[in-house]
Amino acid sequence: MHFTSERHLDDSVLEREFTLGEIPGFLWTPASASADAPVPLILLGHPSLGLDKMYPRLVARARHAAADGFATATIENPGCGDRPRWPAAEQARADLRRAMKAGEPIGDEIIDVLILPLVEKAVPEWQGALDALLSLPEIGGPVGYSGGVISIGVRLARVDPRIVAATFFAGSFVPRVMFEEARQVTIPLHVLLQWDDEGNDRQAALDLFDAFGSKEKSLHANMGGHTGVPQFAGDAAAQFFTRHLK
Amino acid sequence: MHFTSERHLDDSVLEREFTLGEIPGFLWTPASASADAPVPLILLGHPSLGLDKMYPRLVARARHAAADGFATATIENPGCGDRPRWPAAEQARADLRRAMKAGEPIGDEIIDVLILPLVEKAVPEWQGALDALLSLPEIGGPVGYSGGVISIGVRLARVDPRIVAATFFAGSFVPRVMFEEARQVTIPLHVLLQWDDEGNDRQAALDLFDAFGSKEKSLHANMGGHTGVPQFAGDAAAQFFTRHLK
Repeated sequence: MHFTSERHLDDSVLEREFTLGEIPGFLWTPASASADAPVPLILLGHPSLGLDKMYPRLVARARHAAADGFATATIENPGCGDRPRWPAAEQARADLRRAMKAGEPIGDEIIDVLILPLVEKAVPEWQGALDALLSLPEIGGPVGYSGGVISIGVRLARVDPRIVAATFFAGSFVPRVMFEEARQVTIPLHVLLQWDDEGNDRQAALDLFDAFGSKEKSLHANMGGHTGVPQFAGDAAAQFFTRHLK
Repeated sequence: MHFTSERHLDDSVLEREFTLGEIPGFLWTPASASADAPVPLILLGHPSLGLDKMYPRLVARARHAAADGFATATIENPGCGDRPRWPAAEQARADLRRAMKAGEPIGDEIIDVLILPLVEKAVPEWQGALDALLSLPEIGGPVGYSGGVISIGVRLARVDPRIVAATFFAGSFVPRVMFEEARQVTIPLHVLLQWDDEGNDRQAALDLFDAFGSKEKSLHANMGGHTGVPQFAGDAAAQFFTRHLK
């Protein structure tokens, strides 16, 4: 992990950009975090739109988390931003756009080709980032995972015991095989669903929530479109992490 | 409204029993409430099990609300506790028990006979209680409604503009006609659903949530049976009232 820049936001949050091999990322820590007082960590997942585009929303989540006493970190998704594309995913994206424009149902094959390789590539990268982040003296445990491509979060929650709690943003385009993986997830979960999200298959989101094996899981459904998550829903997700990471 | 008893709980809550004609009820007020500093009011709905049986859970909700600065009040449901029964409802209850024991589906007719007259009787009684409660100098507005028989809450929210926000506990046995009424409810709503409540038709609960006409409505689904609402879900409902009644 190589830090490439560092700046203070309002004296309360330290923002550091880093690279991990070819992967760029951000780490935000509350000003209070130190080797003597290490803080818990929340990994900030995000959709495959590129870190540049997602930065404003990520930094808002980071500031909120820092105010609650958490460090946050994120890395670029495979095939996004300046990272190399792979042809099958590009093709699947084009197929997806065409099908959505034509109002056709999105076939399982498109979803599998779009999502499964992304999960296969991204999860080891998040785990590598976690190794590096947890070696920093100002970062302690426990670790939570928040949002982003839900299939990445599900796989990460299933395979990495360092993740002790997760919030997911219910989205469509979940490969069928992930429903089986969801049954093996047992950590506390907090799932946000935008009830009238046009780009979202509500029934699939409810089915996925039902599938999770966790004893503690909460679904918070709210009104508003995909990006219209109300402020109070964000606050509730923050309280979930305060309950589980402190 | 005639007060029949009065006692202090922990010096922080004043509990008063009252009668309103033949209807018994309770009023709980924070010790701080006065004519100079009137407090908002939350009406505490409850299932048709009788106030005596429900008292422990009601007083716990009242204490929590008082700590947040709210007065709370409740009245006995029609046909419950010491209040006169009516034969059709007794028959419908017997039919319901028989059908449930036999594992048969519960017909719409049983539900209509069980619930609709209850709603017809209860709602004007709640409105009468509200008239009396709001005439007390220590009770101000606004007014919220919380829990209980969901059809009573839906009707009350639809017909009484003094109710500005409501939390509902999603339960089964909702007459079909109430789904139409739900479309006419427009106040902010916070709906609790116990996901694995065996006595509950999950799909009916989701359909009812979908039907509400409110621009702000949240569904909080949690694990655990009918009476297993987690503490944090109760806290979230309390925060909803703090957002809307303060």
